[in-house]
Amino acid sequence: MKIAILGAGAIGSLFGALLWESGEDIVLIGRKKHVEAIRSRGLRISGMSGERIVKPKAVTTTQEVGKVDLIIISVKSYDTEQAAEDALNMVHPDTVVLTIQNGLGNIEKLSEIIGEKHVIGGVTMQGSTFIKPGEIYHAGRGPTIIGELNGEITDRVKRIAETFNKAKIETEITRNIWGVLWDKIIINTGINALTAITRMKNGELLKVPEIKNTMIEAVKEAVNVAKTLNIKLEVKDHVKKVIEVAEATANNKSSTLQDIERGKRTEIDFINGAIVKLGKKLGIKTPVNETLTALVKGIEWKLSTSV
Amino acid sequence: MKIAILGAGAIGSLFGALLWESGEDIVLIGRKKHVEAIRSRGLRISGMSGERIVKPKAVTTTQEVGKVDLIIISVKSYDTEQAAEDALNMVHPDTVVLTIQNGLGNIEKLSEIIGEKHVIGGVTMQGSTFIKPGEIYHAGRGPTIIGELNGEITDRVKRIAETFNKAKIETEITRNIWGVLWDKIIINTGINALTAITRMKNGELLKVPEIKNTMIEAVKEAVNVAKTLNIKLEVKDHVKKVIEVAEATANNKSSTLQDIERGKRTEIDFINGAIVKLGKKLGIKTPVNETLTALVKGIEWKLSTSV
Repeated sequence: MKIAILGAGAIGSLFGALLWESGEDIVLIGRKKHVEAIRSRGLRISGMSGERIVKPKAVTTTQEVGKVDLIIISVKSYDTEQAAEDALNMVHPDTVVLTIQNGLGNIEKLSEIIGEKHVIGGVTMQGSTFIKPGEIYHAGRGPTIIGELNGEITDRVKRIAETFNKAKIETEITRNIWGVLWDKIIINTGINALTAITRMKNGELLKVPEIKNTMIEAVKEAVNVAKTLNIKLEVKDHVKKVIEVAEATANNKSSTLQDIERGKRTEIDFINGAIVKLGKKLGIKTPVNETLTALVKGIEWKLSTSV
Repeated sequence: MKIAILGAGAIGSLFGALLWESGEDIVLIGRKKHVEAIRSRGLRISGMSGERIVKPKAVTTTQEVGKVDLIIISVKSYDTEQAAEDALNMVHPDTVVLTIQNGLGNIEKLSEIIGEKHVIGGVTMQGSTFIKPGEIYHAGRGPTIIGELNGEITDRVKRIAETFNKAKIETEITRNIWGVLWDKIIINTGINALTAITRMKNGELLKVPEIKNTMIEAVKEAVNVAKTLNIKLEVKDHVKKVIEVAEATANNKSSTLQDIERGKRTEIDFINGAIVKLGKKLGIKTPVNETLTALVKGIEWKLSTSV
């Protein structure tokens, strides 16, 4: 299968590397420095899948790629629109566009620009950290779940799952990708902003009762929005689940905290901020998520002016 | 007048210095390092009232003081209970105990332990920064407002105002000290936690629309609590006022931010936290203040474990 990874950051590069090792025809599309490093020295991976160097093709623009069978979208959510426009260069009538991004709204934006029939949803629990150009760290293994937007089990979704599983990206197919995506966002709503603001690791959130309580309130607001939207959630008790996730990933730094530590823009608008926006549309109050979103934006602003 | 300053931190040391320069019989009660520095080299003041060294008496315990006419309480709000117990050593039947502390609940605690008839309320807009033991910086001048708890204009409150004014601590008497105190706390509710969490200076809060909005929401919750408690507020429009104060003090770092930058415990429980506590008692929702309080506590915890 000819596969393009559009957004060769931490997670995109990991998927690209594993699929390349499995023998797929891979091209990574990423930023100049990362691409140059991969071209000259290969992509170095360390962490739980072992240490090695892989040599997939790497380019900086989609014009260099041609048509492909599968485009994996792994850009930050604030770059989805641009990525969708760029992806058009690689799309033939049967191309599948799979998003494995964090955050709400990506499927909608990709569908609008590329066409809904191309798009498949995905959620991954693989963990990857960007060390420096040409180098990533495989931080954690976990299931990847993909599914057609209408819930059908199609040949193309089966083919992608097989390809991923062969590459040791453990993948399941769901009939309810929207529910799975929302489940993850709801959990992220409780963890990401709080860790970024307090600079806590995930597990530390549980050590201060007031923070744990805020985590629970943020999650409850998000569940409320999801239920009003008639999202069929898979997780039964998100409050219990967010505590379990914080415990299970106690030593992890959330992606939002990592962004803040690097002085980078975060995806807050597509996590807590998305809950606030939908809440306003539906007439549901989300004061905790609104306060958390504001604070992350304030911290981003302060860091951007302090450099 | 024999005057003891109980809590010779930034603001207490400033009051002590100005009153000593005016010829009052002053004793500062403070921490060991500060007291030792004052005893050996005097108290150095710089800033807007000029640079000089003053030499008031300084001790570490109230047992060394004897009875006094006026005790000015300027400890952090979380130390008020201990200060009240310690103050008893210095109280004769006519001793006046004046609090110039930030935060809610100090008057009540002092009244309970020392006796309500001794206590006078106060609010000061003087600005002072603790530089190091033996040294403070007079950062800003502003009115000091004092008043009897029952609103009467008594001889003793007039005598204290005269003494302060003579010492160039510009002081007014109010019949509504509760309203004045609440006005200040409500403004602090909008500024202190937000600056501490984002590390912004006061004026920067207005530069990020989401942060400005959070400031306004926090203030509205506090006004709601105050009005339900039938506090007769002096300020008519606290939303307008908090914006004015943030503009007028644009380059200041709030006391809560200063505490966070030094890795010290903050007075959050007596500002936003007090609004939350009273809100719960009254059945009023205060989600913004609750989230802000939780986050400051989370940051305090994280800083205390990172040292």
